[in-house]
Amino acid sequence: MSTETMPKTAREVRELIRSGRWRGVTSGVAPGYVQANLAILPQDLALDFLLFCQRNPKPCPLLEVIEAGQTEPKVTAPGADIRTDVPGYMVYENGQLTAEPESLLPYWRDDLVSFLLGCSFSFEAAMVDAGIPLRNQEMGCNVSMYITNIATTPAGVFSGPMVVSMRPVKREQVVRAIQVTSRFPATHGAPVHIGDPAAIGIRDLAHPDFGDPVDLMPGEEPMFWACGVTPQAVALNCKPPLLIAHGPGLMFITDRRDADYAIL
Amino acid sequence: MSTETMPKTAREVRELIRSGRWRGVTSGVAPGYVQANLAILPQDLALDFLLFCQRNPKPCPLLEVIEAGQTEPKVTAPGADIRTDVPGYMVYENGQLTAEPESLLPYWRDDLVSFLLGCSFSFEAAMVDAGIPLRNQEMGCNVSMYITNIATTPAGVFSGPMVVSMRPVKREQVVRAIQVTSRFPATHGAPVHIGDPAAIGIRDLAHPDFGDPVDLMPGEEPMFWACGVTPQAVALNCKPPLLIAHGPGLMFITDRRDADYAIL
Repeated sequence: MSTETMPKTAREVRELIRSGRWRGVTSGVAPGYVQANLAILPQDLALDFLLFCQRNPKPCPLLEVIEAGQTEPKVTAPGADIRTDVPGYMVYENGQLTAEPESLLPYWRDDLVSFLLGCSFSFEAAMVDAGIPLRNQEMGCNVSMYITNIATTPAGVFSGPMVVSMRPVKREQVVRAIQVTSRFPATHGAPVHIGDPAAIGIRDLAHPDFGDPVDLMPGEEPMFWACGVTPQAVALNCKPPLLIAHGPGLMFITDRRDADYAIL
Repeated sequence: MSTETMPKTAREVRELIRSGRWRGVTSGVAPGYVQANLAILPQDLALDFLLFCQRNPKPCPLLEVIEAGQTEPKVTAPGADIRTDVPGYMVYENGQLTAEPESLLPYWRDDLVSFLLGCSFSFEAAMVDAGIPLRNQEMGCNVSMYITNIATTPAGVFSGPMVVSMRPVKREQVVRAIQVTSRFPATHGAPVHIGDPAAIGIRDLAHPDFGDPVDLMPGEEPMFWACGVTPQAVALNCKPPLLIAHGPGLMFITDRRDADYAIL
């Protein structure tokens, strides 16, 4: 099924995923609906992780927390099931990837707390709407992501550097890019840095730590946004007994609309 | 000491309070610095309360959470001590007010988690700057607050109705009032309702549940903002063994500036 023939609502897409009739990268699927990064941790780490997100809202914009043992995101997707409605999962034990299942039913435990975190798709749509093209979409590849020297604010066992995504923007569109992404603090919001990559500890734009390299053209500035890879990297940093996340590009699609989270 | 002769920085004012040289209502003190509501709970209620705040950001805008046993707000006021730097505290045991001490040193326990929540002083300053007068300031009284029929989103043991504050605004300034307060989501942000009080379960504007009544003039609309009394009311609702809060109008003054929290 191509994205053109996919159903258009989040609920319909989740039903296709839950029933095993569709699996794939969710970019461009159910346009206008907010997609979320997923992190699942045992309850004894939940307070620390929730604090970490509260202290680092740019890389870790919390959309919803599902209490221990519960599986329904009542706020952002009533009726959904976090164990079955994501196209693919990554299971980490003691910091090591041990499985990539299509369902969490065999892994579920009553002490698991689920965190849904905003992703960049919302502000990317806002950039495209504002006439600011996305190089990675033009090149048909993933966005470039880098580990920086920007420290996050630690909380309990969780600490580590901020990961950022980079998008090249024409100099005359930099101000507009700041304005339109500032409207979406729940999905990473305004950029954390513009220009010189070395200023935030990035040695070589051509060699991202995650994702794919993209071209930076003359007259463009690299713009850097806090990235949703940060919470996963920070969580793995402390080698928790169990961490479950979504697979790369396999996001949870909520019933909320991008506009629901816009400030002004 | 009058507010005119008070020192102007948050740190200096906190030192006066800590040393017992000044106590009083903090409205208008250290202008431009963000003031915070305080709620302190035992650690076994902290995850539920943090979740409650995450789910209800308009009435419960979290500025900082201080981990169990710690007393320094490292993010918003490094060097401060939450036990001594507020002009007065309210101690509730099992939902009943049992003490109003000037220091928490005799009450402190290693399992206490402290929550600092944004207060309306920041957006009120923004309204005044925008030429929108505040009736309660003109009348020299407290703002009017009401229990509504707007349900908060429950979390664990915490649930209850939203409390709102009301400010009368001239019809031609309503749009501007929405714009300027929308810039401060960390301090209650945009209003939750404009106009007919009955629509949110308020029977009589002249009889607020908290604070003082203020006059509504012809040509004005009542505008309602989510109020920082909500978390305290909700916390007391479940009769926790211990809840410590600031005294009415006796806020914690942070080192952050209003502008630090402005969106756009």
